[in-house]
Amino acid sequence: MGRVNRGFGLGGGGQAVTIRPVNSSPLGFFDSGVGGLTVVRAVQELLPSENILYLGDTARLPYGSKSPETIRQFADEDVRFLIAKGVKAIVVACNTATAHALPSLHEKYRIPILGVIEPGVEAALSCPDALRIGIIATRGTIHSHAYQHALALRKTGLLIHGQATPLLVPLIEENWIDHPATRQVLKTYLDPLVKKGIDTLMLACTHYPLLIPILKELLPPEVRLVDSATTCAEHLKKELTRLGLLEASDRVGSLEIHLTDLSEEFEVLARQFLAKSPGRIHRAVLGG
Amino acid sequence: MGRVNRGFGLGGGGQAVTIRPVNSSPLGFFDSGVGGLTVVRAVQELLPSENILYLGDTARLPYGSKSPETIRQFADEDVRFLIAKGVKAIVVACNTATAHALPSLHEKYRIPILGVIEPGVEAALSCPDALRIGIIATRGTIHSHAYQHALALRKTGLLIHGQATPLLVPLIEENWIDHPATRQVLKTYLDPLVKKGIDTLMLACTHYPLLIPILKELLPPEVRLVDSATTCAEHLKKELTRLGLLEASDRVGSLEIHLTDLSEEFEVLARQFLAKSPGRIHRAVLGG
Repeated sequence: MGRVNRGFGLGGGGQAVTIRPVNSSPLGFFDSGVGGLTVVRAVQELLPSENILYLGDTARLPYGSKSPETIRQFADEDVRFLIAKGVKAIVVACNTATAHALPSLHEKYRIPILGVIEPGVEAALSCPDALRIGIIATRGTIHSHAYQHALALRKTGLLIHGQATPLLVPLIEENWIDHPATRQVLKTYLDPLVKKGIDTLMLACTHYPLLIPILKELLPPEVRLVDSATTCAEHLKKELTRLGLLEASDRVGSLEIHLTDLSEEFEVLARQFLAKSPGRIHRAVLGG
Repeated sequence: MGRVNRGFGLGGGGQAVTIRPVNSSPLGFFDSGVGGLTVVRAVQELLPSENILYLGDTARLPYGSKSPETIRQFADEDVRFLIAKGVKAIVVACNTATAHALPSLHEKYRIPILGVIEPGVEAALSCPDALRIGIIATRGTIHSHAYQHALALRKTGLLIHGQATPLLVPLIEENWIDHPATRQVLKTYLDPLVKKGIDTLMLACTHYPLLIPILKELLPPEVRLVDSATTCAEHLKKELTRLGLLEASDRVGSLEIHLTDLSEEFEVLARQFLAKSPGRIHRAVLGG
């Protein structure tokens, strides 16, 4: 897999699509579905002038239960779609894709590509008292050991407890956040972490910020919550500043959502994750 | 979409793959994942000599939450894969795909293609007392109204209550069948059906046979359960007999499983749904 050396163009044997992004070019985000819109929402709050292009691979969601090879292939197709649209930088707004595909994407593409793991890990360790760290995420993210590895690289002596919590996404997508079943499920998932005396809980899935109120209720008050969305937005601001890629205008940026499968349900979820209307949603065709 | 008129060959502009199946050719099954193996298990019990080729589109599962157009496109690719492998008949071992894609598949292909809905509906109505019928299924199946329509076509005066139960597949795949959260979820889903006085409950998803013991516990004893797996196996036997396509040999048939994404988890689930070892699982590549 050679590094692509012409603009941010696409690799591969065929014709190169070379679009030279400028500061007003959109930021590209991708996720397996619409959960990554929690990251978009946090970015819109912090960087309101940025134009945003969001790709959700709803035809093949979820990524969290699939194999690393398949996730890498899907992520590669997602990145190619965004590059062809002329984005200036890409945010992998999906923990599973970050965990499995970010290194290979960095190897293959020259465009800045940010994941959600490093920012979360940095934020978790910004508090010097953080020593016993729980991580909740999809099975794919936990089994990748990406969070565990990133934490261990930065600080020795940490006690790290990863807990796969595959039922949380379906419950959130049902909007059963206040349902007794969700409390039952959370209790089963959290009890072992609480027993281990965690001081920090990393919400390592873009859906989970919606659970923050109920998590605060269920966890001891001293447990600090670190989510993917706000930490990623702060990291993105720093990176765009460093690269001189911030949009300078003071008007409010646009948001364009592309999904590989459209349905009323995805629209309802998009509204829930964004906390506002998603506007007209476009149908994306990947591949090529 | 013209009817394909050469053998059971594939349509489309390219070269036709024409394999003339014989009685010893395998039966083809497809599903979005491994849930359809409950149908395979029922068929193996009823027709032990048949060779079986199973395709699970695990890279794109689930189908239940996706749009009708996307489901039809996926089902079409699944059928083409099986036809190219020389199967003699195809079972759509997936309620969502049957609901959305079976009519268009019948229009396009000449090979016998059976779904799981007609057999279930026939079985439900085989009892003359069946008047108040509940259906539990994925959102896609319920919203297709395929069951409601098939029931209404066969008998007037029925009271039909469809209930989308999207959390059941994730809970079954977690093997949380005996977990208190599953009881909570089932209570929430079943209470409205019980209040409506259903006499029959159709388990309109291939995963749900695994819930039969707990459903029997939670439902009034007079409610009759009708599942997709055993009813489909009986219907298949009748159809193969009618078409003169039954395998005559008295040896035990083979089972070959192809999945579009492989993972340890799918192997574990396959074993659970089949109630025995799935053997070596092959990686399937669709398209073309």
